[in-house]
Parts: sequence; structure tokens; C-alpha cells
Amino acid sequence: MNESSHANAALIAIDWGTSSLRGFLMDGAGRVLEERASPHGIQNLPMPGIAGFEAAFAAVCGDWLGNRPALPVVACGMVGSAQGWKEAPYAACPADASALAAQAVKVPTGLGGSMLIAPGVKQDAPGVMPDVMRGEEIQIAGALALHPELADRARIVLPGTHSKWAVIAESRITGFATHMTGEVFALLSRHSILSRLMPEHAAPNAAACQAAFAQGVAAAQDSGGGDLLHAMFATRTLGLLGHLPHEVLRDYLSGLLIGHELVAGLRGAAGAGLVLIGDPGLCARYAEALALLDVSPAAVLPNTAPEGLFRFARAAGVIRLEGDTR
Amino acid sequence: MNESSHANAALIAIDWGTSSLRGFLMDGAGRVLEERASPHGIQNLPMPGIAGFEAAFAAVCGDWLGNRPALPVVACGMVGSAQGWKEAPYAACPADASALAAQAVKVPTGLGGSMLIAPGVKQDAPGVMPDVMRGEEIQIAGALALHPELADRARIVLPGTHSKWAVIAESRITGFATHMTGEVFALLSRHSILSRLMPEHAAPNAAACQAAFAQGVAAAQDSGGGDLLHAMFATRTLGLLGHLPHEVLRDYLSGLLIGHELVAGLRGAAGAGLVLIGDPGLCARYAEALALLDVSPAAVLPNTAPEGLFRFARAAGVIRLEGDTR
Repeated sequence: MNESSHANAALIAIDWGTSSLRGFLMDGAGRVLEERASPHGIQNLPMPGIAGFEAAFAAVCGDWLGNRPALPVVACGMVGSAQGWKEAPYAACPADASALAAQAVKVPTGLGGSMLIAPGVKQDAPGVMPDVMRGEEIQIAGALALHPELADRARIVLPGTHSKWAVIAESRITGFATHMTGEVFALLSRHSILSRLMPEHAAPNAAACQAAFAQGVAAAQDSGGGDLLHAMFATRTLGLLGHLPHEVLRDYLSGLLIGHELVAGLRGAAGAGLVLIGDPGLCARYAEALALLDVSPAAVLPNTAPEGLFRFARAAGVIRLEGDTR
Repeated sequence: MNESSHANAALIAIDWGTSSLRGFLMDGAGRVLEERASPHGIQNLPMPGIAGFEAAFAAVCGDWLGNRPALPVVACGMVGSAQGWKEAPYAACPADASALAAQAVKVPTGLGGSMLIAPGVKQDAPGVMPDVMRGEEIQIAGALALHPELADRARIVLPGTHSKWAVIAESRITGFATHMTGEVFALLSRHSILSRLMPEHAAPNAAACQAAFAQGVAAAQDSGGGDLLHAMFATRTLGLLGHLPHEVLRDYLSGLLIGHELVAGLRGAAGAGLVLIGDPGLCARYAEALALLDVSPAAVLPNTAPEGLFRFARAAGVIRLEGDTR
């Protein structure tokens, strides 16, 4: 990046999670001028305590602030958790960017200015299963900023270790559900009896792996998603009895778990446009499973945290576009 | 045990699993004269290979055979798996004690005689999810020997790391399903994000734990068992948001998982008498969950492997009761 592009800098936006930190230098129109990544997630700081947060922040953003110490700084993610730099208590559903801005907290950066941290969102009303998210609400805000046509009514799915399914109505997150799909897959494929038949270093046959994945999705669909503790054991039996080669069992299990998530998730807000956000490879896998269930995503977006942080910064009034009312 | 009781010995019966070996010296009426346990399961032998099996066997049964070298020896469990002493390939459903006897395999014990190993059972027909069991089929044979009134029609549940649900008709196992409830509980409560809120050494309040267990069962029932990947995350959220004290989250998760197993399992063979077999503490927990679903077990039995091995020995003709036709 050259100096001339940096002259437009208007915002520093930080996506600060458990295992990594990503910093974005943005201009006044929400374009990313420069992006940096650091391994200093909140559970991997260079030193303990506040000093660790300050050092990690300075390493990524220090020179950005060097000549422009007044640049506003916003952040989202686990940095605002009870284990973070400063806790930003959850905003309650229904929540939009304004609600996030209203519950944001400020912390001194150690470089003379302050950082505005977005809260997570909680679902905590009688009669629904309680749930929490922290970080995904900003990605959702980014998706709605990029695709205003979805804001009226949509389902947004963020696949991952803990997949989130959010229902959107009138630009607000009205409800959501976390599915532990990625973590359960990791536990079962590494530490359970199912892992014993899975070769460590398979030379995969792509077509066979894809077929096994589809078979797993179909098994979830056939059962209506109601027998996961039983269905997962079939991963072993299909291998033991010679119905599937061992090198595709990992894909079968992946299809089964993603299929169970989809069958459960698709029960809510049927008919609303479905948006996938996240790692392109993982989103492609979800799109593949959705296609087997005759569902086409309305959009598939990569990480929308920068756009979401920009939207949050506007809602909080730390930067303004022409026409912004606050 | 004194010598006079041993004079009646007619059979050595061995339940030989992955992590332990239990030997039973039985008389000609199927009564246990003496019982011994050893930690030498097939994955924990005193030395590798055949010599390890021979040594483990001799340590437990050597003196029983010393004065009666012709005593018949039967065994069940993982000792007959591909990783066992000698593989006894699975018998197909529907299977009864005669089918097990017909597919038993013999291996020299190293002490001059031989051991007859029962096969496991497989469900491997088109249109049903394939499944396998090894060891439980003998416990089921034992339960039917003890309770002949169940043999016509029953559901037998063996709770555990891998719970088995078997459907019995006309004394035969006509179908079954494995649920990975115990293993998933262990993985989630020890290694997942859910474990972080669970205190290592809680001073449990028994009433609060029981209430949390019941709440988990109710959550499974309310959802119809179709959202496990989502529902399990609520274990964390209920703690985070202060709805459940951290020291009862383990019981909530236990209730949720057992509840999901029961909701799925009870869909099959409705109306048939339900029998629980296994560790009394675990069976009590299952009976408690069943009561919350308005189901009363017809019987709760401890380990019925000795009775099952005796039944198997009779079916194989290695011992005879008056009236046996073979």
C-alpha cells in the first residue's frame, strides 16, 4: 500500500476473536485500504492482561495511527467478552446496528485514543431456547449493508465451529440458533471410536468423497434429523461392513452432521431468502448440501466483518456519511 | 469359595471386552460359583499377540482348569473381533442363541483345551441403517433366559458408551440401533466448549442436579429430538446467562443427551415391554428419564452376560440340561 491510499483513511476496524485478530484500514466510503492479520487472538496474547491487548493492538495498528492519532477505532468479537479487553454485555434480540451502537463500550488503546467495542447479541426471552453470539452480529450487519434487499426478511447462516442461523426481519436480528456442527465433527473425527476407521492421510478420490458426503446428507434428510446419536454410529458400521471405503468416512460424517444442521435449521422462517457467510470452501460445502435439499442460497458472501464494522461505526456516530442522521 | 462348591463346576464363561475381562465359574444349572475380574481387556493385554491372550486367560482361569482340564470354556465380546484372539464374524439379524452357536469359532486356550467364542450380530439388510453389536447379544440372550415372558415381543435397552436398543420377536433379535450417547457425553463434557463452564470438582446439590437432568430430558422431548446440534449449545447459554448454576450443567447435558436417545429409540416397536440391562446406577438414570416420558421399564437387570453365556453354551451343545434336544 502506498501513502496516497492511506491519506484517505477514515476508520480502523478490528475483528478480534479467540484465536486471531484482523485489522482493516478503511476509507470514508467503507472501502478497505489495507488489511492485516495477527495470531494474537484473546487467548493467544503476547503477554497477560491489559498490556497484552495493548501490545497486540499496537503491533497491528500502531503505524496506522502514527500520523493520524485521531482515527476512530472500532472492534467486534471476543475482545468484548468477559475474557476480553473490556466486557460489552450482550444486546437483546431484536437487535440492529443502532442497538449494537447503543450498548458499545469504550476502552483506552494505550496509544492515546480509544477503541469502541461492539456488544454480542443474546436471545433470552421466555419460551425460546436461550442463545448468544459475539462477532457474527457484525458480519450480519455487513451482509445487510451489502444486500439491502435482504433486510426486510432473510435467514443468514454462518457455518463454522459453532454455526449461527439468524432470522432477519426489518433489518433486525429477531432470533437465532447456534449449531455445534463444526466442533462435534472435530471431536468425532479426531477423538471418538469413529476416528479409528478414518485414515490419517488418505489419498482422496474426489468423486467418491462427494458421493459419501451426499449419502450423509441424504441419511439426515431421510431420518428427519431426529436420530443423530444413532445415525453417527453408522459412519463406523458402513466402514466395518464394507459399504463405504474407509477414506470417505470423514466425508460421510461431514455430510451427516451438516445435513442434520440443515434439516433442523430449515424448519425456521421457511421461504425467507437464505444467505451463507464465511469461508468460501465451507460455504461451498453447505451450498452443496443445501442443493441436495432443493434449497438455493440467495447469496454466498465471504467475511463481511469489515462492512459490518463500518456500519456499526456509522451507527455509533464515530464516522459519518452524507445523509447520516446521527 | 471353598472346594466343595467348585466340585459342581460345569462351565467357564468369559465376558472379554476391550478394557476388561470377567470370568465366571458356573455349575450345571447356570449358577455362578465364582467370579473373577481382570484388567486385561483385548486392548490391555500383558504382552502382544496370541501369547497375551493365553497369559490373560491362564491368569484368570488356570487354576479352575487345573483339576478339571475338560471343563468347557465359552466367551463373548471383543475377544471375537478382528482385533481379538480369533475373529468370529457377525451373525445376521434375525439372530437367536442357536444362530450364535452356529457361527461360533474355536481357539486353543494354550492350556490343552479350547474356547468357543460367540460371534457378534449385524443388521445389514437393504433399507435399514446398518449396525453391529458384539457382547450385547449375549446379555440379551441372558435376559430372555431369565425372563422368558419377554421373548415373544420386547425392546431391550443396554445403556452405555454405545447404548444398544434391540427389538425382540419370537426370542430373536430382529433389529437394533446403537446410540453413541455415552461417548458423546464424555467428549462434550471433557473436551468441548461446554466443558469450560463445568466445574471440575463440584459439590453437587442432589436436588438441583436432578432438576437440571429433568430439564434436559424435557428439552429433548419438547423438540421431538430433532435439533441436537443446536440444543447442546444451550448447555453453555443457560450457564452464561445465569439460568442454571454451573455445577448442574453436566446433569443438564446428560439429561439432554439421554432424552434425545430415548425420544429416538422409543419411536421403534412402541408398546413392547422395555427392559434395561446394565450398570445399576446408569439404569436408574435411564429409568428416571423414561419416567419423565411416562414409560415404565418392564424389568431392570444387572449384567446378564453369565446367564447369556450359559444359554449360548447350551445352544452350542457344550453343556446339556435334561430335556435339551441338542
